[in-house]
Amino acid sequence: MAALREKASSLPAITLSAKQACDLEMIAIGAFSPLTGFVGKADFEGICKDMRLADGTVWPIPITLAVDDEVKATLSEGSSAALFHSDGTLLAIIDVQEIYAHDKALEIPNVFRTEDDAHPGVAAVQEEGDWLVGGPIHVLTVVPENEPGEQFTEHRLPPAETRADFESRGWNTIAAFQTRNPIHRAHEYLCKCATEICDGLLIHPLVGETKPGDIPADVRMDCYTTIIEHYFVDERTLLTVMPAAMRYAGPREAVLHALIRKNYGVSHFIVGRDHAGVGDYYGTYDAQNIFDEFEPGDIGIIPLKFEHAAYSKKAQGMVSAKTFPKLEGDQIFLSGTKVREMLAKGERPPGEFSRPEVADVLIKWATSEVPA
Amino acid sequence: MAALREKASSLPAITLSAKQACDLEMIAIGAFSPLTGFVGKADFEGICKDMRLADGTVWPIPITLAVDDEVKATLSEGSSAALFHSDGTLLAIIDVQEIYAHDKALEIPNVFRTEDDAHPGVAAVQEEGDWLVGGPIHVLTVVPENEPGEQFTEHRLPPAETRADFESRGWNTIAAFQTRNPIHRAHEYLCKCATEICDGLLIHPLVGETKPGDIPADVRMDCYTTIIEHYFVDERTLLTVMPAAMRYAGPREAVLHALIRKNYGVSHFIVGRDHAGVGDYYGTYDAQNIFDEFEPGDIGIIPLKFEHAAYSKKAQGMVSAKTFPKLEGDQIFLSGTKVREMLAKGERPPGEFSRPEVADVLIKWATSEVPA
Repeated sequence: MAALREKASSLPAITLSAKQACDLEMIAIGAFSPLTGFVGKADFEGICKDMRLADGTVWPIPITLAVDDEVKATLSEGSSAALFHSDGTLLAIIDVQEIYAHDKALEIPNVFRTEDDAHPGVAAVQEEGDWLVGGPIHVLTVVPENEPGEQFTEHRLPPAETRADFESRGWNTIAAFQTRNPIHRAHEYLCKCATEICDGLLIHPLVGETKPGDIPADVRMDCYTTIIEHYFVDERTLLTVMPAAMRYAGPREAVLHALIRKNYGVSHFIVGRDHAGVGDYYGTYDAQNIFDEFEPGDIGIIPLKFEHAAYSKKAQGMVSAKTFPKLEGDQIFLSGTKVREMLAKGERPPGEFSRPEVADVLIKWATSEVPA
Repeated sequence: MAALREKASSLPAITLSAKQACDLEMIAIGAFSPLTGFVGKADFEGICKDMRLADGTVWPIPITLAVDDEVKATLSEGSSAALFHSDGTLLAIIDVQEIYAHDKALEIPNVFRTEDDAHPGVAAVQEEGDWLVGGPIHVLTVVPENEPGEQFTEHRLPPAETRADFESRGWNTIAAFQTRNPIHRAHEYLCKCATEICDGLLIHPLVGETKPGDIPADVRMDCYTTIIEHYFVDERTLLTVMPAAMRYAGPREAVLHALIRKNYGVSHFIVGRDHAGVGDYYGTYDAQNIFDEFEPGDIGIIPLKFEHAAYSKKAQGMVSAKTFPKLEGDQIFLSGTKVREMLAKGERPPGEFSRPEVADVLIKWATSEVPA
């Protein structure tokens, strides 16, 4: 470590974006395995064109280190560079194996299936530098000095420790639920259906960079711990965080999310409607259907494809369009806008939509300050 | 057919027991594939000892044609025999390849894991003849002349037609629910969890021979069609019957039930607690754990292992011990005895236990005559 630090002081510096810092952590902890660094040109092209690394392994989204002309001018292939957090913390050193043009015209339409600047993932790539640096990384730390380094520390379990935890619990089949929202009853229902057919459930919220308007990760974590305390079975539930950044790439990101969970030791992965989507860029079932494009062994994890769910008065419980007929006025559904309005006024949504304990966490946040 | 009938008239006759007639139908329709007849000695021994046919294929319960000394005296290896229903209908001709001693001392403890005469499956084997006849069968009909030949005809779909039906519906993943009881809310819940993660659900009641005390198949069919009409989604649900006889062999019968469903084109099979068990002969999870003794490809169908479920007032829905904490007085549970008492008095159990429409079917049966 000391030697790396010493070496870094004489190297050209690259300050990472928030997305790149998330990616660095994901690589460092093994969550992006088999990647051991930022991708080179052959992998970049294989990923964009065929959703595969150059060696044929399925990988749907390029994990890139983009730099601008100015930084690029300080680098040379075969040398190294020091990677810094925006707060100045030295995070890692990269072996600069390749420097190549950032082919955004290849990446954007393939990965996002749109070139619309209004798409937050597209916009993020558009704003990135025009050069990509590929090579393995040597990590010193993934914890920045001046940020809440202890953020969710107790829940920040890397893949190897997560797998060990599953083993110590005697779980062979584990369903993972990816989320970047509070868990209301609809998602609680999906989680519980999955738990019924598995040994255990991993609630695995994404706490890396999300878009403005998403509920902050710390508020969501309060929601998760609250609903687990009151409505889940401790011995069957594990809550840990996943430090990736969102791309909002819909189907391709659903595959990425599944591959990540395989690294965490999960066997089943919950894929809802419009998983990892944003706006109207993706068809309702695109993120479920994409799994059918692969052989089961290619992904190595079983997708659990769910419909939307809602409480039915006649059925006295949660239902989906697959499990209960549609009856006039029977199901309790609230729009996101309506829920936000209620919370901002300090009102709980109906218990059939949101657990009151969770509603109270959100009301506290929504009424105590201007929500981010 | 005419030639077979002609031939049969000159052959020694074997009148089948109800269980044997069920087995004959299962063989005839392909539900017992790869069996094409009653098992010979090598298969019998492999099944009893290792749950495998002589060629290594998994098969957990011997499908035997037992005859007594008197009938045995009329048969000879290398000849044929005519198989009759108890009402006199000629059902099939068997090529008598083997006649061998019925090794009940091998069959009973291995298949049933008990030798207790009070076990209905054990008792059935004990009462059978001391000789077994092995060989392929040539079927004329599986419909007896003097019995309700049209019993459940519209729901009596053989495996090949069932598979074709799934294909025409576009279902790739299908969960099957085996039952010999009315569907109350607990089992409805298992069915619906399974449906959420599959394309469709096959409700597949066993209508072959069951033990005294079980609710008659025609009453159960009324319960099934009623609950499907009011609480299931037509496009996701298929109700057909499975004409096998019960053995009450618990774990081994669970494997048999799964193999049968694979023949019907099913991908997932619901295995509850004490599946196919009776009394206290089997451990709660024996019928689930037995699947772990095989490689996944050996069975070729995914077991969905469920816990008991009940309605929780606090959760506002169905839960199991895996998905909701146990709270004092929270769950609505009624014993079988209590339910029978209520029905006999014309009272509906609570809607959280049994759908009122189903309760009414059972009340009508329980109050209109002495239940069988």
